[in-house]
Amino acid sequence: MREETLHSLFGDMVEWRRYLHRHPELSFREHRTSAWIAEKLEAWGLEVRRGVAGTGLVARLTGGRPGRTIALRADIDALPIQDEKTSEYASSVPGVMHACGHDGHTAELLAVARYYSLHREETAGTRVFLFQPAEETLPGGAVGMIADGALDGVDAVYGVHLWTPFPSGAAATRPGPFMASPDEFEVEIVGRGGHGGLPHQSVDALVAGAHLVVALQTIVSRNVDPLESAVVSVGMLNAGSARNVIAERCTLAGTVRTFTPEARAHIRQRIEEVARHVGAMHGAEAKVAYYEGYPPVVNDAAEAERFFRVASSILEPGDVRRCDGIMAGEDFSYYLRERPGCFFFVGAGAEDGSSAPHHHPRFDIDEKAMLTAAKLLVGVADDSAEDAGPRA
Amino acid sequence: MREETLHSLFGDMVEWRRYLHRHPELSFREHRTSAWIAEKLEAWGLEVRRGVAGTGLVARLTGGRPGRTIALRADIDALPIQDEKTSEYASSVPGVMHACGHDGHTAELLAVARYYSLHREETAGTRVFLFQPAEETLPGGAVGMIADGALDGVDAVYGVHLWTPFPSGAAATRPGPFMASPDEFEVEIVGRGGHGGLPHQSVDALVAGAHLVVALQTIVSRNVDPLESAVVSVGMLNAGSARNVIAERCTLAGTVRTFTPEARAHIRQRIEEVARHVGAMHGAEAKVAYYEGYPPVVNDAAEAERFFRVASSILEPGDVRRCDGIMAGEDFSYYLRERPGCFFFVGAGAEDGSSAPHHHPRFDIDEKAMLTAAKLLVGVADDSAEDAGPRA
Amino acid sequence: MREETLHSLFGDMVEWRRYLHRHPELSFREHRTSAWIAEKLEAWGLEVRRGVAGTGLVARLTGGRPGRTIALRADIDALPIQDEKTSEYASSVPGVMHACGHDGHTAELLAVARYYSLHREETAGTRVFLFQPAEETLPGGAVGMIADGALDGVDAVYGVHLWTPFPSGAAATRPGPFMASPDEFEVEIVGRGGHGGLPHQSVDALVAGAHLVVALQTIVSRNVDPLESAVVSVGMLNAGSARNVIAERCTLAGTVRTFTPEARAHIRQRIEEVARHVGAMHGAEAKVAYYEGYPPVVNDAAEAERFFRVASSILEPGDVRRCDGIMAGEDFSYYLRERPGCFFFVGAGAEDGSSAPHHHPRFDIDEKAMLTAAKLLVGVADDSAEDAGPRA
Amino acid sequence: MREETLHSLFGDMVEWRRYLHRHPELSFREHRTSAWIAEKLEAWGLEVRRGVAGTGLVARLTGGRPGRTIALRADIDALPIQDEKTSEYASSVPGVMHACGHDGHTAELLAVARYYSLHREETAGTRVFLFQPAEETLPGGAVGMIADGALDGVDAVYGVHLWTPFPSGAAATRPGPFMASPDEFEVEIVGRGGHGGLPHQSVDALVAGAHLVVALQTIVSRNVDPLESAVVSVGMLNAGSARNVIAERCTLAGTVRTFTPEARAHIRQRIEEVARHVGAMHGAEAKVAYYEGYPPVVNDAAEAERFFRVASSILEPGDVRRCDGIMAGEDFSYYLRERPGCFFFVGAGAEDGSSAPHHHPRFDIDEKAMLTAAKLLVGVADDSAEDAGPRA
Repeated sequence: MREETLHSLFGDMVEWRRYLHRHPELSFREHRTSAWIAEKLEAWGLEVRRGVAGTGLVARLTGGRPGRTIALRADIDALPIQDEKTSEYASSVPGVMHACGHDGHTAELLAVARYYSLHREETAGTRVFLFQPAEETLPGGAVGMIADGALDGVDAVYGVHLWTPFPSGAAATRPGPFMASPDEFEVEIVGRGGHGGLPHQSVDALVAGAHLVVALQTIVSRNVDPLESAVVSVGMLNAGSARNVIAERCTLAGTVRTFTPEARAHIRQRIEEVARHVGAMHGAEAKVAYYEGYPPVVNDAAEAERFFRVASSILEPGDVRRCDGIMAGEDFSYYLRERPGCFFFVGAGAEDGSSAPHHHPRFDIDEKAMLTAAKLLVGVADDSAEDAGPRA
Repeated sequence: MREETLHSLFGDMVEWRRYLHRHPELSFREHRTSAWIAEKLEAWGLEVRRGVAGTGLVARLTGGRPGRTIALRADIDALPIQDEKTSEYASSVPGVMHACGHDGHTAELLAVARYYSLHREETAGTRVFLFQPAEETLPGGAVGMIADGALDGVDAVYGVHLWTPFPSGAAATRPGPFMASPDEFEVEIVGRGGHGGLPHQSVDALVAGAHLVVALQTIVSRNVDPLESAVVSVGMLNAGSARNVIAERCTLAGTVRTFTPEARAHIRQRIEEVARHVGAMHGAEAKVAYYEGYPPVVNDAAEAERFFRVASSILEPGDVRRCDGIMAGEDFSYYLRERPGCFFFVGAGAEDGSSAPHHHPRFDIDEKAMLTAAKLLVGVADDSAEDAGPRA
Repeated sequence: MREETLHSLFGDMVEWRRYLHRHPELSFREHRTSAWIAEKLEAWGLEVRRGVAGTGLVARLTGGRPGRTIALRADIDALPIQDEKTSEYASSVPGVMHACGHDGHTAELLAVARYYSLHREETAGTRVFLFQPAEETLPGGAVGMIADGALDGVDAVYGVHLWTPFPSGAAATRPGPFMASPDEFEVEIVGRGGHGGLPHQSVDALVAGAHLVVALQTIVSRNVDPLESAVVSVGMLNAGSARNVIAERCTLAGTVRTFTPEARAHIRQRIEEVARHVGAMHGAEAKVAYYEGYPPVVNDAAEAERFFRVASSILEPGDVRRCDGIMAGEDFSYYLRERPGCFFFVGAGAEDGSSAPHHHPRFDIDEKAMLTAAKLLVGVADDSAEDAGPRA
Repeated sequence: MREETLHSLFGDMVEWRRYLHRHPELSFREHRTSAWIAEKLEAWGLEVRRGVAGTGLVARLTGGRPGRTIALRADIDALPIQDEKTSEYASSVPGVMHACGHDGHTAELLAVARYYSLHREETAGTRVFLFQPAEETLPGGAVGMIADGALDGVDAVYGVHLWTPFPSGAAATRPGPFMASPDEFEVEIVGRGGHGGLPHQSVDALVAGAHLVVALQTIVSRNVDPLESAVVSVGMLNAGSARNVIAERCTLAGTVRTFTPEARAHIRQRIEEVARHVGAMHGAEAKVAYYEGYPPVVNDAAEAERFFRVASSILEPGDVRRCDGIMAGEDFSYYLRERPGCFFFVGAGAEDGSSAPHHHPRFDIDEKAMLTAAKLLVGVADDSAEDAGPRA
């Protein structure tokens, strides 16, 4: 890797990221963003396929030396949040904001594409650049990109998330389950309303709902392997409309976070079983609606080890971390279900942890993190492209 | 008793009741109703004190023979309900309706007053007629009537409720606790909100609320004498506003029905204890607001037996019932805390149970029940007035 | 009634009762007791049928005047309790004791039989004396007595229990449900045991059992009419045998007390439903065994009123009570399912409530209560025998 | 490392292990075992300190080259289990058995000591051999060994456990928390017993206990970081002794498994809080006894990486695993609280997972695993001894 090239592109990265920050676009509506990216890539001589999964792009560059085909992905959409920053690059679009760092992801992947266009001859194998729409909104853009051939011929795939809870300069990931699957569920319990003083003539949906909330606690405490990380939280419960009337209906809704398909399926099944039996136990009916979010991001173990090895050669050893799982979700998970690869975090926050959290109206990143991310993408892509044998 | 006089007054009762039904007035606003009653009573020669407890009346008539002073009470207020009947006497006031039979109570007590004005000389002792406002709205009119001297010099007090769940012609009461004390309560649990995937950083008020609802069931199942009738119903529970956010607050509210002051005080104390400890158990704070409704209606045992004896001499034996307690409340309870007496029900519904329940938009009574009620009031008042010794 | 005759028999009653107290016999083994009673009855000229339901007796006496046939019942068995009294009439049989007053019941019914033998000519109708074995042990002796014709030709049946919680001299009963049905149940929950640190590999029967106990509270708090008296108590729970092993089995057992067949059937059904669904909810199996005790003692309303009327003419008015239901059970209930009648209590305790409770090793009665009981039995029997018309 | 020397010692290892297997001794009573080990070590020229922590030994050997002082530990006690094997080396002591592999640990550490005695001149630094009593019984032998100076002058400490759930040939550990802290607790709830039909006169300790079990589930489901592994299992619950008597006492006991001191302290505090408030909520008193087991085994991160590096150079790469935490406990944790080091597992089971689990009456090991373990101990000790700088 010619690090000096990436260093020389840092000014461009900042300029590009700030341009995007000023002009954010919501999920599946990234029309101007997509066109703006495509023009740059085409100007640099890459082969660009537009309109992938609607507003996505797939760009290719084949190097001068033999090697494998490596995909690198950035997500390009913004969030429906009003920017409260006062910086000159604050969002110019009311109620829309890059509050999750996707502007940085796009800028750094553009820099990586520019890098390869400048070092094409010495590059081994092929690089595929995935500029994906709609990471923020279910069902996510990754599914459509893959359906539209984004991974055709690809041997491995890598991606990065700038992450303000970690200090700028650090890089982190973990083999296996890394980011959670954020599912949601809703239960409606239908009993039979009645006079508050005559409970025996009613089926008290509120009491059934309370028993359900209590019983759901046993899923994590008893049914999930304690070595697995999993959460079942009921966030809302509403029942009844008068103090002296027994509630006919009780509605409750919550979130499930898991790191493995097994835990996810098991918890879903347990919620349905527990709700059905708690309902029947009280003579009520409980209907469960379960909404699957993205699957968990599961890093290939060998690819994660590749990342640790490569990152250790680029960063200070203390800056490369094996971190715990992260309770948030990401649709990068879909790429990793199709191809080996690794998703990793690059710290983009203050050393003292004072940075605003993701999705906050004053969210911002340390822009130097983009350079770190670009170096790691190039490093891991080059290492992977030259991997001798076919992947085990 | 001269039953024929009461029979001859039945036409008036129906007329008066229908007039009142067409012109209902809400609690503490019974100005026209009160004046209309007062004019009649004064025309019949009774001594009337107006403006008692605002819109109430106390009228007196002293008979020609010695005897005790007996109070009889009717409540005169209507409810904020839109009358849906199509009869010619349906309410003419939008959104206000005599949906609980107080129009009948007033008409029958007027007939009783007229009766005594026609039989003054042969009447033993004194009769006090209490036309009370605001039985439907806390704190009720009885408290103010008593504070304003309504029971001064009174030896015993009787009252009646027309009751459509019982068939017309029947009369019922029970010695001791007869109608429940309808209290209400509200609990607010304050925890600490947070990310649905990070429960350990929060204090989950919803889970605490569910445990509270479950634990409150033990008050009736374990802490109340099984021979006492008591209900604790949580009618409403609301917690949280998003599926993936842990609820900071949980509010729940309900009703408590009891028949004795001991059960009432014990349940109130238990709700407060259980709420406090469930809150503390989860690291949350639970604040209880408890609103006392009317006390239970507790009939004097000897007066209830008087009622059964007198009623058995007036009605067919099968029409006099010892009934179970009734879960509804009544502020007649305040009179019974001050004086011996008895509150009883007179059936005013269809034989087949098809009558609309009290507080229903199509509530109506079998008007013949007014005649039954009037006979019972005169019968029990006369019997009581002539009671030889001082009350045991 | 010739009260003086009963007074003159009081010394015999005491002697007989003390003899029986010294020589108690267990349920269904009352051979000597039965023979001893039979000899007396035959000596007095009664027609005695021995060996009814094993050790029971049915004796008849027909009076000189026309009238109905009235049965009076005493139970004759003792309990497997070691007498700790030091009185000269303490039990001479180790581990067996008349700790429930059946010796008194027998003695007072003997006195009543003797009374009638002395006043045969002036007696209206027929008296049937039921000396019943095994009131203390399921299925009870009443079932067999009835099957063996004890009620053949009988028009009404009465019985009495000496009761030390009430002061000697008082008499009490209530129309309708009077004594509870004391059922029992047992639930066995079978899960799958396992390592305490690996709950997900197990089905935790102990946690299921705890949820069951909690859920069972809702039967009384939600499913039973608050005007009904009912109790569901889990008295025992055992699960697991090591701290660090998840329990494979959880056994719990309890008692159900009800006063009506409807409440009894409903609670039984709810226990079975709740247990089944709590088990299934946790992936365990819950098996319920339900043991029906005696049915509730339900007094005929008219017969209870007869009792109150008769008793008020024999005792001081203040000594006749309408009492609440009693949570204990009695197999007199079977007679009342076949014939109209009334079961009543006669106080046999100290005025200050200091008497030992029933089934206590130092249980004893105030013997004067036997005289009260005998008067009431004769009074109510004579009144009933002369009842004009056929029973409504 | 001269692997051929260790290979040549394999026959001795097997012989020694089988001798020990035939002659097991319980915790703190390993007198003959200890003497037998000491004789061998002294015969090989090591400096042996006997009677450390009762029946423990500390032996030293200083190499011919400079280097750090490295401790290696084996545990030497057996379990109170009846051996059910039929092999010729089955236990000859009734009711006592090496059912956890400590015989293998001892044999392999003896072989390592013999190895160093044969290669003293080429050895860098000093080796300290810890033959520790009583790993199986609280408070464990490690505490006493350390108090008795076993780690004096030691720079790093390593230990191994033969583990039949892993196939023979594999080695595994993890940086940071590796084995759980196995605490235990007991809660006694004291209520007030009473008649099963009169719950209001009692404080139902059984119902309080059930609520406690239910509420304890929230500790893992709500109070513990989902990324932490933790278990709270109630293994036993006993309450009441009769179906129709309300339980005065309820005793429950369980185990807590954690991997960090923070989680451990937090769970202990939560159990105490929840128990106190559940008790108070029901009017009962709940007393908690909490017994701390061994602390969690927490591997130094750098030492774990040393182990992975060294092991990868000795074994096939696929045989070196980063494993999940293990829910069992080990008093090796005490050494790791005093010195940097690493505890690791060497697979000793069948490839197909058919081996009997630890503490099973037919437990046995694949003896070849001892050779693997010995190689790893020598490898990691030599690497650590030559570690340039002083450990950070």
